[in-house]
Amino acid sequence: MDKIEDFLKYLSKGVDFSDEARDLISSIVKIKRFQKGDLLIEQEQEKVLHTYFVLNGVLRSFIIDKNGKEHTVQFAIKNWWISDYIGYYGNSEAMLNVDCITDCTVIKLNRASIQEVFARFPEFETFHRKNLERTFVRLNKRIVNHLQLSARDRYLNFITEYPEMESVAMNYHIASYLGITQQSLSRIRAGK
Amino acid sequence: MDKIEDFLKYLSKGVDFSDEARDLISSIVKIKRFQKGDLLIEQEQEKVLHTYFVLNGVLRSFIIDKNGKEHTVQFAIKNWWISDYIGYYGNSEAMLNVDCITDCTVIKLNRASIQEVFARFPEFETFHRKNLERTFVRLNKRIVNHLQLSARDRYLNFITEYPEMESVAMNYHIASYLGITQQSLSRIRAGK
Repeated sequence: MDKIEDFLKYLSKGVDFSDEARDLISSIVKIKRFQKGDLLIEQEQEKVLHTYFVLNGVLRSFIIDKNGKEHTVQFAIKNWWISDYIGYYGNSEAMLNVDCITDCTVIKLNRASIQEVFARFPEFETFHRKNLERTFVRLNKRIVNHLQLSARDRYLNFITEYPEMESVAMNYHIASYLGITQQSLSRIRAGK
Repeated sequence: MDKIEDFLKYLSKGVDFSDEARDLISSIVKIKRFQKGDLLIEQEQEKVLHTYFVLNGVLRSFIIDKNGKEHTVQFAIKNWWISDYIGYYGNSEAMLNVDCITDCTVIKLNRASIQEVFARFPEFETFHRKNLERTFVRLNKRIVNHLQLSARDRYLNFITEYPEMESVAMNYHIASYLGITQQSLSRIRAGK
């Protein structure tokens, strides 16, 4: 149960909420433990009804293209959220996969339950709206950087933003996140 | 004044609001007319305090890189929103420019006024949150497509999503939006 406390503590940094809201949230969240390699969401297999908050571990979302190649869309570490947000917000089947790069503990939240929290406690909708705005900034920066920066500069940005990823992610995770080949990633790392 | 009616009509499709809310909104929006080529937001020149709703015309946001090259980040047509959302939501100086590809009529909204509307009429925060979620899906799809699709498929997606853009946007607007050279764009259009 202490893990739910961690989640409530995270929420309390952004929202001032009542004991009633606390009880509702505690009743709707589920703690899930996964092992390295486990799939939380599988491309084209199901409607995306859940989002995940990371208590421990590292996850990623990715797409497998028609040639079988994986492309990393997002990484998530402690205190981040992850899902296939195309399916989740688009109310559609999964377009992406989400898997565990390391063993993970996550909070699993159901979309319908979150809507219930928003309806009863609007302060959580404001919190969510602000989170979305921040994530929106991050996605826009990623698009802008992809358009204007060299592969080397994109890599340098990446290791600044995710310093812990170098030691846990595979080369092809990082290369495909940056939209470059593994050979290019090796050359950049070697300073060539 | 009929232009404000157009904006209120757009809002009424997504929110059920009172006459009081209507009066508040009418009092805070400003209609602005711009000519082709006019800059609404200039990179690095100011804090981004406004967002724009397009009543007529076509606009784009873009960044000029250190070599002076322009990269298109977003297009906006009738009933779309545009700003430099990195600066706007990040509460920072403009990272992007926004200019008019054609003569434009827009509704100009100030961030502080929008916050006031959210505080007094939370139904608009819900409306905004849902818009953000839809835009979030669109941005995620753009990132996924950029990672996995060929330049040709990205172009085909683009003309499906923005059919009117082919006739008004310059080649370098579209090429830089897709992250390809103008030469590649010409080859793709010629079916080569």
